[in-house]
Parts: sequence; C-alpha cells; structure tokens
Amino acid sequence: MFEGTLAETYTGTMSEAYVHGYDARENERLRDQAGTLVELLHDDTAYPAGSTVLEVGCGVGAQTVTLARRCPDARFTSIDVSADSVAEARRRVERAGLANVEIRQADVFALPFDAESFDHVFVCFVLEHLSRPVEALANLHELLRDGGTITVIEGDHGSTYFYPDSPSARAAIECQVMLQREAGGNALVGRQVYPLLVEGGFDAVRVSPRMVYVDASRPDLVDGFTRKTFAAMIEGVREPAVQAGLIEPARFDAGVRDLHRTTEADGVFCYTFFKVSPQLSMVERGKAGGSWGSVRWRGVASAV
Amino acid sequence: MFEGTLAETYTGTMSEAYVHGYDARENERLRDQAGTLVELLHDDTAYPAGSTVLEVGCGVGAQTVTLARRCPDARFTSIDVSADSVAEARRRVERAGLANVEIRQADVFALPFDAESFDHVFVCFVLEHLSRPVEALANLHELLRDGGTITVIEGDHGSTYFYPDSPSARAAIECQVMLQREAGGNALVGRQVYPLLVEGGFDAVRVSPRMVYVDASRPDLVDGFTRKTFAAMIEGVREPAVQAGLIEPARFDAGVRDLHRTTEADGVFCYTFFKVSPQLSMVERGKAGGSWGSVRWRGVASAV
Repeated sequence: MFEGTLAETYTGTMSEAYVHGYDARENERLRDQAGTLVELLHDDTAYPAGSTVLEVGCGVGAQTVTLARRCPDARFTSIDVSADSVAEARRRVERAGLANVEIRQADVFALPFDAESFDHVFVCFVLEHLSRPVEALANLHELLRDGGTITVIEGDHGSTYFYPDSPSARAAIECQVMLQREAGGNALVGRQVYPLLVEGGFDAVRVSPRMVYVDASRPDLVDGFTRKTFAAMIEGVREPAVQAGLIEPARFDAGVRDLHRTTEADGVFCYTFFKVSPQLSMVERGKAGGSWGSVRWRGVASAV
Repeated sequence: MFEGTLAETYTGTMSEAYVHGYDARENERLRDQAGTLVELLHDDTAYPAGSTVLEVGCGVGAQTVTLARRCPDARFTSIDVSADSVAEARRRVERAGLANVEIRQADVFALPFDAESFDHVFVCFVLEHLSRPVEALANLHELLRDGGTITVIEGDHGSTYFYPDSPSARAAIECQVMLQREAGGNALVGRQVYPLLVEGGFDAVRVSPRMVYVDASRPDLVDGFTRKTFAAMIEGVREPAVQAGLIEPARFDAGVRDLHRTTEADGVFCYTFFKVSPQLSMVERGKAGGSWGSVRWRGVASAV
C-alpha cells in the first residue's frame, strides 16, 4: 500500500482509485513519501560495484531511482507484473538518466531468470500484496547465488497508534486492512516478515524495525509522513470502503479528521516498518545454516 | 505497570495481586525485566560526577540500583510515596553497597525540596500511575536548576502487537489498560510524553522511542521480555479483571495462551517504550526557549 506494485493477486474488486500509482495524486503521494522515508528505509542499503540486484515489484520506480542512484556501480533488474507500472518506471528511470537499470515486466510466480543468477534481491512493499508470499520468497531464494542477500521492507498498519487516540480513526485504518485482505494481500505483513522468510527457505534472518515517531518537534515528518503519506493513503480508500459497506461515510470522515488532529501541536503519530537487513541475512548454499548463531544480537530498537 | 511505584492515586479498588512490588513473584518479574531492558532503557542515561539527581517514584529500587551503579559519582535522592516500597528500596540499595543514594518517602504532589535544588530529575514508569501528570511534571520543573535535565521513561500498552494476532490476547491486554484507567492511571501514556512535558513547562522536548522487537532469533528477549515481563504482567491482572467483570475467565486464559503462542519459533512480539532524552531536553531558565530549534532532528527510529 505504501509504494506501488500491482500484485498479480489484485482481484480488481475495488475501484480504480484504490490502485497504486495510476493517478497523479497517488504518484505525488508516493514521491512525497519516498523523500520523507528514504533515509529511514535505505540508510543501510548498499550494493557493491559489479553486483547484480533483482528488484521485485518495482511499481512505478520510486524505490528503483533511489537504489540505482545510491549504488551507481551495481546493475539492477527491476520487475513488475503490471505493464502500466513498467512503462511509468521506464520513463522515470530514463528521466533520472540512470544507465544501470533494466526494467522488465515479469511475475514473481513465473520468474524468467536462471537459478542462482543474482547476487542480491530487493523487495519493498510487495509481500503485502501477495496471497502466497512464502512461494514468492522461495522462488527468489532460488535466484540467489551463494553469499547473496535478500532485503525486504514492509509496513504494518497494525503498528499505527497516535495521540489523541480515536476509535473512528482506528476504524478508518481498519477499512484499509480489510480491503487489502479482500484483495488477497495483508496490510499487517510487517510483523510477519521473520516467519515468512524462514518459511521461504532463508536462514539467519535478521529483522530491523524502523519506527517513524512523529510529534510537533519534527515538522517535516508531521507534514511528510502523517499528513501526506499516512492520512493521504487512508483517505484514498474512502470510496471503496464505503461502497463495500465497511463503514458509514460520516464515521470514515471523522476518522480522517482525527488522523489530521494528530498533526496539531500536542499530537503524536507512530508507525513501524520492518526491514530484513541484507548484511545479516545471507544465503549460504551447501551449508546447513546456523553460522550466524554467534552474531551478537542487539535485541532492541532505539532512536533519537 | 512495568516497574513498581504505588502512586498516590492508587485507589485500592483492585486486589493486592495487582499492586506492584509487594510479593515475591512480582519482585522476581521486576528483576527479570530490569536485566533484559536495562541497555535499551539506560544506554544513554549518564549523570556527571557531583551532580544531584532526584529519582521520582523509585518503587522498590530496581532502577535506583542501576542508576547509582552507572553513575557512581552522582548523588541520588530517590523518593516514593509508599512506605513499604521505600523500606524495600532501602534494603536493596544497602545490599548493593551503594553509598550515593538517599531514599525518602515523599509525594510528587507535595515535594519537600527547595526550588532549583537538583541538577537532574529521573522519572521511570511513574506518569502511567498519576491522574494529574502535568501537575507532577510542573512541580518537578520547579526543582531543576538552570541547565538541568529531565529523563522520562514510560511504556505504552497500545504499542503492543504480535504474530500470530489474537483478539483474545488483545482483550486480555485491554483489561490491564482498563484497570489502570480505573485506578486513575494511563497505560497508554508512552505516546503522550511529548505533549505532557510541553504542558508541564519543559521546552525543547525530544522523545526517543525504544522498540522491543522479539522473534525466535532473539531467544533472550523471547524469554526475558515476552514471557517473563509482558505475559507475566498480563497474567497478574487475571483476578482483578475477572472480579471487575471486564472479561470471561476462559477468554482471558485463551488470551494469555495466545501471548505465549507468540514465543514459538514463528512468533513475533513488539512493544515500545518512550524515553525523553536527557541530553536534548534541558531546562534553560530566563530564556524564552527555542534555542533548540536548530537541533537537527533524526525523525526516525532504527535498530539492527
């Protein structure tokens, strides 16, 4: 939901307004978001010169441009199942003047690549859309060479809480969760990335939560995250939520107002992304795993 | 709820089992917890030699010992409203052989200290018990000298989520929230520390969330936090919750079972503490504030 890929599981039961990356306002929201969250999500994303990276579910290319700029000497293959998204991503990569990216239309459940043909796999805001995420991860595991890594970044709408609290706002958010579930996805997938990756065949999975904490002392996040990313995303499901009979229009609107209420001087907003850290989640072919058992975990998250 | 102080607002409507720090099992839980969480909560707590620190709501002294050991050349005055807690804290400090701590029975709403008589104030798991937290903070603000700091650490039970998700587990947690509210406290106070401190007269308040993320790759936290701290805390409110008619016993027990279910190999558990960072929240007497406007915020939390 945070960054657009039209997963193959998208069943088309909801209005076009709900589809990611297809209208100007949504594109603007995704750009706002990438600017606000890029450091949070990508500060430890780095691929060495000459390495090959498969980006799965690139959508309209918002993360692609960030990745390819950060790692100019790595070679990216970015795929998406949607022809429209691929076309937009190609335009975006071209406008950015990036020569180290190839965009292809492809399905994570029918990947047109040989086994062990990539050094790294990057998956951002994709598992949330898949009805069979473990199968997708197992497919990606097969594509990785010995010593390869996977990076996964997913949100979790159940990690949202705020002050002042509001049952209406929670109900509006729950509409998004239900719509995504109805479409075969999972808006609560962030908390689940550890078991999904383990089940998909990865061992030594290390999850690094990235909490976005917003209060009035952080005005860029108030505007860039709470208002223009999260509240805008929830506002975007009004029509399908009301049409599906999930909520009364007045209650939904009250919920959106209450989300905006958290952007006032005494308001607080919290959301957490979950990242599988590439440095600590390396594929080791021909080994039984367990070599990371001695890695000293830092069992906590902290922030200034 | 996490660390014991019997706030003066404690109304005695609940069974003794709910009272912090009074029985052996609760004491053991508090020790387990302190050992698990000490780095998370205290890694940036440091007071210089010769400085005076007021610890408010020291309870049975679990944090007191940690603080006084970490800062052997600072002088601590630790207060609690409960005579029983004060007696236990004195025993504990004596057993630890700490000479830099004075324990006194005192009420944060009737403080027996002169204005501007401390360099630092430390408040941990206390605001959650107070029905008038802003008044308490304003009182503490008065005690601080120019250049003094306040450190606040509070939990937030609404920050709890887990996999597998469970409505019963959420209902059991909600019992704790309701009981604490009934007692005049607020188990969701963590998200609120920013506005509370601002309203209490502090400016340039900087909140640093400390997320505890637990999955099977972090076995010490599975045992020390999910099982022995959080689930044990919820288990502790079974009797008062059932007696108050908040929940059916069977549903409560199912909820506790489901909390323990999150400690299995595919389970995940998340909880967040909120710390007001002392380094960034300094009292500046005789100034209109705003001098921290140029501090570059790092608007996010991250962790390995």
